[in-house]
Amino acid sequence: MALQKKNAYHVAVMGATGVVGQEMVEILEERQFPVEALHLFASERSAGSTLTFRNKDIVVRKLSEEVFNGIDIVLGATGGDLSKKFSPHAVKAGAVVIDNSSAFRMEPAVPLVVPEVNGHTLANHRGIIANPNCSTAQLVMALKPLHDAARIKRVIVTTYQSVSGTGKEAMQELMEQTRALMNFQEVECKVYPQQIAFNCIVNWDADPETGYTEEETKIVNETKKIMGDDAIRITATTTRVPVFRAHCEAVNIETEKKLLPNEARALLSAFPGVVVMDDPGRKLYPTPLDAAGQDDVYVGRVREDRSVPNGLNLWVVGDNLRKGAALNAVQIAEALIR
Amino acid sequence: MALQKKNAYHVAVMGATGVVGQEMVEILEERQFPVEALHLFASERSAGSTLTFRNKDIVVRKLSEEVFNGIDIVLGATGGDLSKKFSPHAVKAGAVVIDNSSAFRMEPAVPLVVPEVNGHTLANHRGIIANPNCSTAQLVMALKPLHDAARIKRVIVTTYQSVSGTGKEAMQELMEQTRALMNFQEVECKVYPQQIAFNCIVNWDADPETGYTEEETKIVNETKKIMGDDAIRITATTTRVPVFRAHCEAVNIETEKKLLPNEARALLSAFPGVVVMDDPGRKLYPTPLDAAGQDDVYVGRVREDRSVPNGLNLWVVGDNLRKGAALNAVQIAEALIR
Repeated sequence: MALQKKNAYHVAVMGATGVVGQEMVEILEERQFPVEALHLFASERSAGSTLTFRNKDIVVRKLSEEVFNGIDIVLGATGGDLSKKFSPHAVKAGAVVIDNSSAFRMEPAVPLVVPEVNGHTLANHRGIIANPNCSTAQLVMALKPLHDAARIKRVIVTTYQSVSGTGKEAMQELMEQTRALMNFQEVECKVYPQQIAFNCIVNWDADPETGYTEEETKIVNETKKIMGDDAIRITATTTRVPVFRAHCEAVNIETEKKLLPNEARALLSAFPGVVVMDDPGRKLYPTPLDAAGQDDVYVGRVREDRSVPNGLNLWVVGDNLRKGAALNAVQIAEALIR
Repeated sequence: MALQKKNAYHVAVMGATGVVGQEMVEILEERQFPVEALHLFASERSAGSTLTFRNKDIVVRKLSEEVFNGIDIVLGATGGDLSKKFSPHAVKAGAVVIDNSSAFRMEPAVPLVVPEVNGHTLANHRGIIANPNCSTAQLVMALKPLHDAARIKRVIVTTYQSVSGTGKEAMQELMEQTRALMNFQEVECKVYPQQIAFNCIVNWDADPETGYTEEETKIVNETKKIMGDDAIRITATTTRVPVFRAHCEAVNIETEKKLLPNEARALLSAFPGVVVMDDPGRKLYPTPLDAAGQDDVYVGRVREDRSVPNGLNLWVVGDNLRKGAALNAVQIAEALIR
């Protein structure tokens, strides 16, 4: 199913008032996406508010099954339930949906895409294209060039995830809890089950049998799908830290072929969208503050892991709202209209 | 070299005004260590201040080579340089030194001790006993019962370390930076090279060749020494997070013999000083806030890692000032006088 090529497109953002939706609007403007008209949709609660696009205020309208007529591309930034409900209507109306929710990611017929890694799978879409989980997107950006050169056998990923991944209420909660603690007041937990300020928590539902969180399972399954290789063995531990924006990942890999750190750095540097920031002698490595607001995925702390014959440790930092969500969705749209 | 048994001892704390030194004084009182007299020493800068012990103010005196006469046990809470300079004088004066610095940890003749793990090595001391690095202490507490039951072949440890590990100036810096950011003011970095508030950083010197930090190397070497097994292969990634107290560790292990999560939980629960806090269905797992101020090492998130035949993931949280430093030192002293 190919998108009909035009000079400019009717683009809709579904879930426009959330952190990812707002970021999509900004990125469409920033990257000069050929927008004929921008249509913003959200739940009833947020309908009526406005967002600015190209110096014009656009009113957010209530999402319903009937809003998709005449729209070419829908960028989905709602939760899975809303996406499941509305995306099929958008497709029926002739739009292509690029969905940031987890609703369709693991459906075999739905391409799950990071353009630099598996852009070729876009050709097979049937109206819905899935955008990966934020932690997965930055992970596969670092894995792909190493996998192509040396075949990755095993990945152990440990995350330090920022609160913006949960949404703006979570950012507000970190702010409020921090302010309360600085003023010796009691802390309220509304969004997260435990205090996030000055703490490390696990805020995803865990499988009572295996103990793995939804986030960990997503990383494992989505990485295999995007890399197009079910033979890669992956295990993950996900943790939320008191950081506003950008996720860090400590990534341990084992490869079939030996890769020295300098070879890995060269492969990563040559990969589009990845920046190597790695000079231990000068204490250079990426932090969340470096990656926040940036498009690139930063890799540093590339070290030989001598506990196995062909091991490497990496430190991967990316903006969870950009490459981890809105930017990747817009890049998919760019690939579709190319 | 055995400590002469008495009803009560002359105990000195060297570096008494730092976070670890103060914690040692508190723990000696809390655990009713048989103290005949407590002697507090610090650098010139801190000499003259007082600390309270058993409701009495004790004046901190300036550390010098001549202060150790008549002292039975020295708890060392200075940095490595001061310990190297003064510990031999304490030993010469007849004291046993339990040193929290890294100065002597890897010397073959110096026992490096976590009493629950390798208390038997205390018998061989020659006057100096080393207390491990904070991250190592809580790690070996979780590894030991699993190693004894199933032989650990490989460990991949990823840390989330609190700022109290750096000292009180670092705790102050996290507080001040947080306050500045909440008031939209500029952040000052005096202790850490980068902003720690709402960020994740690496504040240890890294080897320019291998890229590994001093902290990572300590974890690898000290773990092997304490476990008494050089065959365990270990790799580590250490990171500082904006948390005041208690370190978290994501620990991935591979064992010779298969260990199911329930078997691992039972082994860990039975080990002295370890508490299992693990019920995924009830979202129960330890956070730094749970462990802060506590003596036990908490283990949760025990999961089978199916990416290898005999793999397990663990989440280990401990108070870096207690089991990671002052408590372990006092426990060594308790073992010596038993």
